[in-house]
Amino acid sequence: MAENKTENKKTGKNDAGKNDSGKEAVLPPKSDFSEWFNSIIDIGQIMDVRYPVKGLYVWYPFGFGIRKRVYNIIRDIMDNSGHDETLFPLLIPETEFMKEADHIKGFEDEVFWVTHGGVTPLDVRLALRPTSETAIYPMYKLWVRSHADLPLKLYQVVNTFRHETKHTRPLIRLREITSFKEAHTVHATWEDAKNQVDEAVGLYTDIYKKLSVPVLISKRPDWDKFPGGDYTIALDTIMPDGKTLQIGTVHHLGTNFAKTYDIMYENAEGEQEYVNQTCYGISERSIAALISVHGDDKGLVLPPAVAPTQVVVIPVLFKDTTEAVMNACNKVVSDLKNAGFRVEMDASDARPGAKYYKWELKGSCLRIEIGPRDLEKNSAVLVRRDKGEKQFASLDGIVETVDAELKQMAEDLYTAAEEKMNAMIAPCETTEEVVAQIGKGVATLPWCGCEECGMKIEEETNGSILGTPNVETEIKKGKCPACGKEADQIVYIAKMY
Amino acid sequence: MAENKTENKKTGKNDAGKNDSGKEAVLPPKSDFSEWFNSIIDIGQIMDVRYPVKGLYVWYPFGFGIRKRVYNIIRDIMDNSGHDETLFPLLIPETEFMKEADHIKGFEDEVFWVTHGGVTPLDVRLALRPTSETAIYPMYKLWVRSHADLPLKLYQVVNTFRHETKHTRPLIRLREITSFKEAHTVHATWEDAKNQVDEAVGLYTDIYKKLSVPVLISKRPDWDKFPGGDYTIALDTIMPDGKTLQIGTVHHLGTNFAKTYDIMYENAEGEQEYVNQTCYGISERSIAALISVHGDDKGLVLPPAVAPTQVVVIPVLFKDTTEAVMNACNKVVSDLKNAGFRVEMDASDARPGAKYYKWELKGSCLRIEIGPRDLEKNSAVLVRRDKGEKQFASLDGIVETVDAELKQMAEDLYTAAEEKMNAMIAPCETTEEVVAQIGKGVATLPWCGCEECGMKIEEETNGSILGTPNVETEIKKGKCPACGKEADQIVYIAKMY
Repeated sequence: MAENKTENKKTGKNDAGKNDSGKEAVLPPKSDFSEWFNSIIDIGQIMDVRYPVKGLYVWYPFGFGIRKRVYNIIRDIMDNSGHDETLFPLLIPETEFMKEADHIKGFEDEVFWVTHGGVTPLDVRLALRPTSETAIYPMYKLWVRSHADLPLKLYQVVNTFRHETKHTRPLIRLREITSFKEAHTVHATWEDAKNQVDEAVGLYTDIYKKLSVPVLISKRPDWDKFPGGDYTIALDTIMPDGKTLQIGTVHHLGTNFAKTYDIMYENAEGEQEYVNQTCYGISERSIAALISVHGDDKGLVLPPAVAPTQVVVIPVLFKDTTEAVMNACNKVVSDLKNAGFRVEMDASDARPGAKYYKWELKGSCLRIEIGPRDLEKNSAVLVRRDKGEKQFASLDGIVETVDAELKQMAEDLYTAAEEKMNAMIAPCETTEEVVAQIGKGVATLPWCGCEECGMKIEEETNGSILGTPNVETEIKKGKCPACGKEADQIVYIAKMY
Repeated sequence: MAENKTENKKTGKNDAGKNDSGKEAVLPPKSDFSEWFNSIIDIGQIMDVRYPVKGLYVWYPFGFGIRKRVYNIIRDIMDNSGHDETLFPLLIPETEFMKEADHIKGFEDEVFWVTHGGVTPLDVRLALRPTSETAIYPMYKLWVRSHADLPLKLYQVVNTFRHETKHTRPLIRLREITSFKEAHTVHATWEDAKNQVDEAVGLYTDIYKKLSVPVLISKRPDWDKFPGGDYTIALDTIMPDGKTLQIGTVHHLGTNFAKTYDIMYENAEGEQEYVNQTCYGISERSIAALISVHGDDKGLVLPPAVAPTQVVVIPVLFKDTTEAVMNACNKVVSDLKNAGFRVEMDASDARPGAKYYKWELKGSCLRIEIGPRDLEKNSAVLVRRDKGEKQFASLDGIVETVDAELKQMAEDLYTAAEEKMNAMIAPCETTEEVVAQIGKGVATLPWCGCEECGMKIEEETNGSILGTPNVETEIKKGKCPACGKEADQIVYIAKMY
């Protein structure tokens, strides 16, 4: 009872499984993905969409619990690969922001401008960072002097802003991106920066592996690269509706920003040279991806690494045996807590069905039920959220069993998601085949590589070229359908979020 | 050598102990506190003040390392006392912001306004939050329905903005407060909210205890309370120059905001009532305080709980014994790391004096030197940063010794700081005595409690009334110097930052 009450307080809502107006909420089937997503954001208590500004949302404490764990994973991986965390200001003076021509063109339509402090107009307008190159690089000019200062690898986790005019939605398209992890590195040579790009792609793949989210990695076509960069490698995942979601980008900036912001270093021969730079980012789309890839008709399915509740223990209570069962449950809870697991007990007087419903919705990874008959056998019933099947486990060694089940679950989630993703990719040879495919997933197509053909293909298919896979695939190359020439590469094409 | 190089990269600067222009920097004596503070922020690599907007600064990775640990302490204490972390948007529509009249009056002169998205003027101007009441409480109206939802205790760590026209300085007076921890709680009754205020004061005192920072706690006079609140309890510490720094505030909001934002709950009798609220905040002034209170002429003195480097191991190398000494040092480093300490080895070829200088400046808590003669005795030299005296410790049990020394250091720092603070408080009976005292510290004075006398006292002393101590003190009451009436309270008076 007490536990249940605490739960309510945490959410700031009346009850799990009720929606914002307090009515019993019904999650639409996941096959109706768009509705399912909107609904899980609400009744799964990820974000409240009722904040009175378009494109700005409020993290519920439960959703924030997932965010916190995802970003702890990201920070760990960044810290352990020689990046240092830092923090730069949000506000960028117009004079700095306007220095890099391509960069401006890429962002000027969507920048929020601060024009007044109190009732006083500002001398220089201030941009809310849409991304931080123009805030950070003037400082890098001051910080970098010699080759001994390189590489410089910093990152920050910050809020960034885009005045989106398209349809906004939580976690995916926002006016305030609340959780942008952006890294900015500086190197002596173009080759060093290229190696950093490769390292970053590897780190991001590792991050997504920990979230059990499979990714497609490709080099974006030139017209879709980062404004002001040399080239862009992107990570996408395929959402249940077949559209792709870009969930990470890594940019080689060459010396473009170095020239704009005059960032030079003295090389070993004592000569001044422009530095080479990279930047790479990941946002709360990472959370959109893990929710969408793993969730099901019953609600959230959360990887154990980020689930706020990894294990829920449910005592099955009958009058005469209450005390013994409660003792056994308490012991399991305390043993699991001591072993570092996130455990909750649900001893509320709700019906068992209501409890299952609630904890399944919230994506608790493992349900442990203990009743008097289980206790007689010194045993418990275990139900894994992703499998839904009952199994029996001895109460001796329950900690080891839970540990093994959660590890297995993380692996199984990844494997299942990867299989599902691969099944959604189909090799195509003509634009007609692409049109038929990209309603359902990703198409691959031979492409000669020229922009004109690329544009033609996008127009004919009404899809977007994600780019060229950055690893060799076994998919055979063929003729570019736009010009008929033999193509030396294939590209992914999809409908993009 | 390698270690030293890594260090350089981390800072993004050429060398510790050199200032921004690469020249050998000299820290002014702490007796010249204002200069000392500016200098330690720079050469101590806390923040870079050269960002091209007034009042906005850049966290160096080293400074960010301190910040991260301070905020981990704050988060732990909040989480363990039943608060849940959450995140609300930065941008507040003018329509919501302008609802609470007193609140507006308190903030309207210093709010930054966003007026444009891209080139398009916004329909409704958006305020950068100076604090989040007006962002959060419209949502609380939606979230709170019944007494079972109460208490609701949430907090967030966010950036907030004030268009300061006064002299700005890092950590103390900023236009972007990068690290505002603000809590917002909702309760059924005024008394419940009062108890929450008391709890919060206790939690904040605990936080500062962990930073070894002593605090003065007082109830602010009415004219200095939070705009829109019932009353304010504040935590101040005394800076080395005798001025006080407000480092935490706790506000009882009564039903004022509830009435403005229509936040009601159904009580146990089924009647609708306005909720009572509190809010309380702590910012990066916490870091200004710990740096200022503990630092000395040699640089930073950091409490072990937040020092990025708790222990530095320095091998004393001579040709024939290099290997044995390095082995011993490596073992100490790895034993300490395994025990969870933050340790660095400085095996660079800098002179010993240069190494001491560098690590003292950076506030490393404990220096361990091992040379061949120490090794013969299976011993090491230990120097605690705050004491500066050499002591010898056996290499057996070095982990336990380090653990004990760091714990003792945290205690000693607190005791020393508390003694220093208490010595800076003097009881006064006349405004002349106050004038003489508040150049050096805090004065206490009897006060009848009426605003007119309060204003007169502030005017005559050119000081600020911090407020009435919220615990009984032994300082005897007397006559209010402004009206001559017998006073039933004393107040703290000081020059405030």
